[in-house]
Amino acid sequence: MEGPSADRESRLSRAAAHRLSLYLRCVSNWPANGGKVSSGRIAAAVGVTDAQVRRDLAALGHLGQRGIGYEARELTAAIRSALGINRTWRAVLVGVGNLARALLRYQGFRAQGFTIVGLFDSDPSKLGQLVGDLKIEPVSALAERVSVLGAELAVLTVPGDVAQSVADVLTAAGIRGILNFAPAVLRLPPGVQLVTVDLSIQLEQLAFLVQNGGSRITDDD
Amino acid sequence: MEGPSADRESRLSRAAAHRLSLYLRCVSNWPANGGKVSSGRIAAAVGVTDAQVRRDLAALGHLGQRGIGYEARELTAAIRSALGINRTWRAVLVGVGNLARALLRYQGFRAQGFTIVGLFDSDPSKLGQLVGDLKIEPVSALAERVSVLGAELAVLTVPGDVAQSVADVLTAAGIRGILNFAPAVLRLPPGVQLVTVDLSIQLEQLAFLVQNGGSRITDDD
Repeated sequence: MEGPSADRESRLSRAAAHRLSLYLRCVSNWPANGGKVSSGRIAAAVGVTDAQVRRDLAALGHLGQRGIGYEARELTAAIRSALGINRTWRAVLVGVGNLARALLRYQGFRAQGFTIVGLFDSDPSKLGQLVGDLKIEPVSALAERVSVLGAELAVLTVPGDVAQSVADVLTAAGIRGILNFAPAVLRLPPGVQLVTVDLSIQLEQLAFLVQNGGSRITDDD
Repeated sequence: MEGPSADRESRLSRAAAHRLSLYLRCVSNWPANGGKVSSGRIAAAVGVTDAQVRRDLAALGHLGQRGIGYEARELTAAIRSALGINRTWRAVLVGVGNLARALLRYQGFRAQGFTIVGLFDSDPSKLGQLVGDLKIEPVSALAERVSVLGAELAVLTVPGDVAQSVADVLTAAGIRGILNFAPAVLRLPPGVQLVTVDLSIQLEQLAFLVQNGGSRITDDD
């Protein structure tokens, strides 16, 4: 769709980034088989076409060799670099309920280079409580603490009705991206990124798929 | 892309279903303003174009009137019907940890017509524990209990390494759809629907967006 002058990175869509995440999971889970993996094996595991895998991986640069496949270690490093997880991300977590506690125990956070460096809640009875190594601090301290903690990202697990006001404080404090679990459509200033995990939407998607039998539904639009 | 013989419903994509969920949330949250809502207002709230909203809603049948807008109640009912949430869905939940407890308290489940009717865990120390009104039952009882409970859906919050075997039991027991939180790529028989909420992928998406500044990234492929 774009002219030849568009550089490769700029053409990586969210959908492609999502597929790269899936490829990464597969390759990471496989025992190194002489260090090589084929696009066909990745395609079969993820459920996309071989051509799609080759196209996605070609966008990352010169990686594979025809008939030989991809060097697993090189492929992993290239995907991690494209996704931005070849580094550590420091994040604060706001709203320390059951979901937050589940997230704090979630192995994937640390494995992907995400470190929770601060916990915040507006409930006075929770303040000072230790969760893991971290003491719960008041939401009113966020503005000041975000920069002290060196946090770039925030995980939002607050009720929907306060999500926007907390997001405003976070973005004013310099947060660059928010992983939002609150059931609210957030408006963020340009340059601040948002990924929303909206459980009611996931539930509705499942109901929709079951009701319609799945077979007649396309993934794209 | 499809011929004129394709019926409307069959052309509703997952992406369109996702947008309908967002429209539904907006309209439900707004105080009834004489009972009317405009496509422009929905578009602005969700962040898509007015034309997209009108196209999506046109696929649901004859709903709005030019210059007058949509009847809020009629619109809500049409979207709920298209998504399959104009009824109750009974679901079992397998793996009763922090995430499960957070989900059980999540208001959105009941609000969207999803009722958790059974809790299952393989940890013997949890068996018989009451969570809300429900007693935790052994995973080994699933095969028999799914039909007794009349459950059509399952929520999977087990560790990744046992997710596939639990999913196999669930599908053998007649479950029609799985909401999977386990970090695993599940393979289900045809006709069984899957929605995966993969937190490590959401995290990677956020890192990807922050690293790339968002502006050069397209939503589609």
